[in-house]
Amino acid sequence: MFLVQRRLYTLGSRAKLLKTIYSLNTLGFSTSAKMALKFKNAKRIEGLDSNVWVEFTKLAADPSVVNLGQGLPDISPPTYVKEELSKAALTDNLNQYTRGFGHPSLVKALSCLYEKIYQNQIDPNEEIIVTVGGYGALFNTIQGLVDPGDEVIIMVPFYDCYEPMVRMAGATPVFIPLRSKPTDGMKWSSSDWTFNPQELESKFSSKTKAIILNTPHNPIGKVYTREELKVIADLCIKYDTVCISDEVYEWLVYTGHKHIKIATFPGMWERTITIGSAGKTFSVTGWKLGWSIGPKHLIKHLQTVQQNTFYTCATPLQAALAQALWIDIKRMDSPECYFNSLAKELEVKRDRMVRLLNSVGLKPIIPDGGYFIIADVSSLDADLSDMKSDEPYDYKFVKWMTKNKKLSGIPVSAFCDSESKSQFEKLVRFCFIKKDSTLDAAEEIIKAWSSPKS
Amino acid sequence: MFLVQRRLYTLGSRAKLLKTIYSLNTLGFSTSAKMALKFKNAKRIEGLDSNVWVEFTKLAADPSVVNLGQGLPDISPPTYVKEELSKAALTDNLNQYTRGFGHPSLVKALSCLYEKIYQNQIDPNEEIIVTVGGYGALFNTIQGLVDPGDEVIIMVPFYDCYEPMVRMAGATPVFIPLRSKPTDGMKWSSSDWTFNPQELESKFSSKTKAIILNTPHNPIGKVYTREELKVIADLCIKYDTVCISDEVYEWLVYTGHKHIKIATFPGMWERTITIGSAGKTFSVTGWKLGWSIGPKHLIKHLQTVQQNTFYTCATPLQAALAQALWIDIKRMDSPECYFNSLAKELEVKRDRMVRLLNSVGLKPIIPDGGYFIIADVSSLDADLSDMKSDEPYDYKFVKWMTKNKKLSGIPVSAFCDSESKSQFEKLVRFCFIKKDSTLDAAEEIIKAWSSPKS
Repeated sequence: MFLVQRRLYTLGSRAKLLKTIYSLNTLGFSTSAKMALKFKNAKRIEGLDSNVWVEFTKLAADPSVVNLGQGLPDISPPTYVKEELSKAALTDNLNQYTRGFGHPSLVKALSCLYEKIYQNQIDPNEEIIVTVGGYGALFNTIQGLVDPGDEVIIMVPFYDCYEPMVRMAGATPVFIPLRSKPTDGMKWSSSDWTFNPQELESKFSSKTKAIILNTPHNPIGKVYTREELKVIADLCIKYDTVCISDEVYEWLVYTGHKHIKIATFPGMWERTITIGSAGKTFSVTGWKLGWSIGPKHLIKHLQTVQQNTFYTCATPLQAALAQALWIDIKRMDSPECYFNSLAKELEVKRDRMVRLLNSVGLKPIIPDGGYFIIADVSSLDADLSDMKSDEPYDYKFVKWMTKNKKLSGIPVSAFCDSESKSQFEKLVRFCFIKKDSTLDAAEEIIKAWSSPKS
Repeated sequence: MFLVQRRLYTLGSRAKLLKTIYSLNTLGFSTSAKMALKFKNAKRIEGLDSNVWVEFTKLAADPSVVNLGQGLPDISPPTYVKEELSKAALTDNLNQYTRGFGHPSLVKALSCLYEKIYQNQIDPNEEIIVTVGGYGALFNTIQGLVDPGDEVIIMVPFYDCYEPMVRMAGATPVFIPLRSKPTDGMKWSSSDWTFNPQELESKFSSKTKAIILNTPHNPIGKVYTREELKVIADLCIKYDTVCISDEVYEWLVYTGHKHIKIATFPGMWERTITIGSAGKTFSVTGWKLGWSIGPKHLIKHLQTVQQNTFYTCATPLQAALAQALWIDIKRMDSPECYFNSLAKELEVKRDRMVRLLNSVGLKPIIPDGGYFIIADVSSLDADLSDMKSDEPYDYKFVKWMTKNKKLSGIPVSAFCDSESKSQFEKLVRFCFIKKDSTLDAAEEIIKAWSSPKS
């Protein structure tokens, strides 16, 4: 990294350093103390400055670390996806601004794709908006629909940005836990995790603006069943609530399970924003393209947010994504379709991780979808006495593991509200959308670590 | 465009259309009337739904229209810029997430570039943040620093998003006009436009959180002088105010003028966020990459906003931009450097537009920077009797011109607060970063239109 000597902030030293023609100005100067007060953050971001990705990505940047942390594929994206971007880059007009709410060819491809799945028409211009990733889609949705004083229901654990995004909108997150059923012996699956319907209803009130659903679920890998979704849908309708459905892992569902869109339930289209992601669909997380799909009367508010935040997404990426989608839309029933083939490829990796973790006594929660697997690491030997003491066990554990074992993961308590952290702090999330050689390296580390000291 | 038959939103029709296995659910249904109330926009975006770009870009989408509207180059971007993106697209790991606040090689290139200009060190990781365009940099800055109840000073006319972005933060924009000095005869220049220092000071108060400066100025093309900037800097220091300096056209300054950074004035670095743009720098508006540069104690708040909005910008674009920047950083003193050559190329186009507009009696404001030229269109014959009556003259005029003359521009009153619109409604902004063939076509239209009817 490029390190520069830190600048001294006093005016005196700057005046000496800068080649300006000015004498010191005469209107008066702010002092550091005065500035520190006036130039502090806006209240909406108070306390929202820590971020697990910033912290743990920096930690895993050491090239000697086997990185199973952030959800970052190290497998190659499909060749045609990369080639479409390479071609778009050389086309002059694809390097200029496009339509603010989505490049015309991309919203057309998305409407065609999702019409097959919703079995209904989707207006490409009024019912779809292209965003800066699934993350940006969540932000647009929350900023467009949620007011200060509103409540938003979030199931714990949850993808970590849900909570600060709700707080940045001035609203109150209301948490409900997913709990695991008792399991006997070895097999512990993401489908053992569910919510209590009565407990969920108790979280709804006239203040409830929205519930955030995430299926397939990150970090647990749970794929919500039709019955579970029915309970949620019924409550959304009863309490006249918006459903924000984060379905970025929609294609990554394993044998015996099926992804179901809550927006297709009776009465739900008109109150649901469904979020998708190019990064997850085509293993190109660096493209930062996502989308929200929903009724015009909701999407129009997301459009208003977008035109007052960054206006439009990058054109060459959008144009390339449209072309790539057309290739797979035309072969959706074929095993070669990437939407199908990636899930098959990942299922093998999931099974390998399950075997590995079981073989060393680290009980995994077998995921039914997504590309993460959670393991209970309490049996792994780690001397955390040198670590910062005010952090949850899993934060300390992952930092220790990254430094001492050269293996990274993400602490599951990062996906919890402050009150629930202690229930999840013996769990670590590992990402398995990785080349075999990366998984080999992880296997070697875990096996050596858990084997009895000689 | 792809038109689909509009869906009927009633539950009954959806239930029939959807192949679901459900009987109608029993918890009760929201009515449309109830939904219309509950599902309305969040208050922060109330009244911010109109947008000149959405409206006029749609209008100019007709391929038979000569589009001098949106600031959208139709000249080719530099070949090496396109090629760098084309290459990055084929590199696996450049298609995955990168550092949230800016790809390492990009912030390093930016720090190297701007260290030459600021004549001071800039920490790539703590004093620079890469954003979704200059637009996204403005948003980040305002959301990170401006609270409800704060005031933000904006000079009129102004790039249109400043006002809704300030309002979306719950703050109050305080407007001060740029006024033109009287001019004699033909020559009317952007440097004839300035502010009154006493009037500007009267806008500052203890509530003033920030002033937004834009130099070179869009739409006027004004390049603020050292003396003008000194007045603004002194007031910022006196009233302990942040300066948000939008300098996206920093390289596009014409003979006899020089772009000066207010952040280099004594006492200003510590209170200034300076915004730049890859789209303007390399004629690739579709890349949607920009950056903010400023002191760590301000940039850290922009980082907090970014990690709670979309987290990171697209990696292949950032990596390609870094490579392109290195090429021009190494030849900054050469006329071949794109930062220099583009301004030379555009100056010829500006002069052509000045001659054209003068030749038909449309008095132009000759810009000293940027790629827009404003003309007073009141002498052009246009029958606006069929146009919507509740709009400013220039809105009606541009719509009429686009439809009837197949030439588009942007109404200058779009860059004004509601009270000032009437003072600017005879002015239209034309963009001249266009191929000669496009300018030929515009010339033909304007000359035919203004020639006496035979």
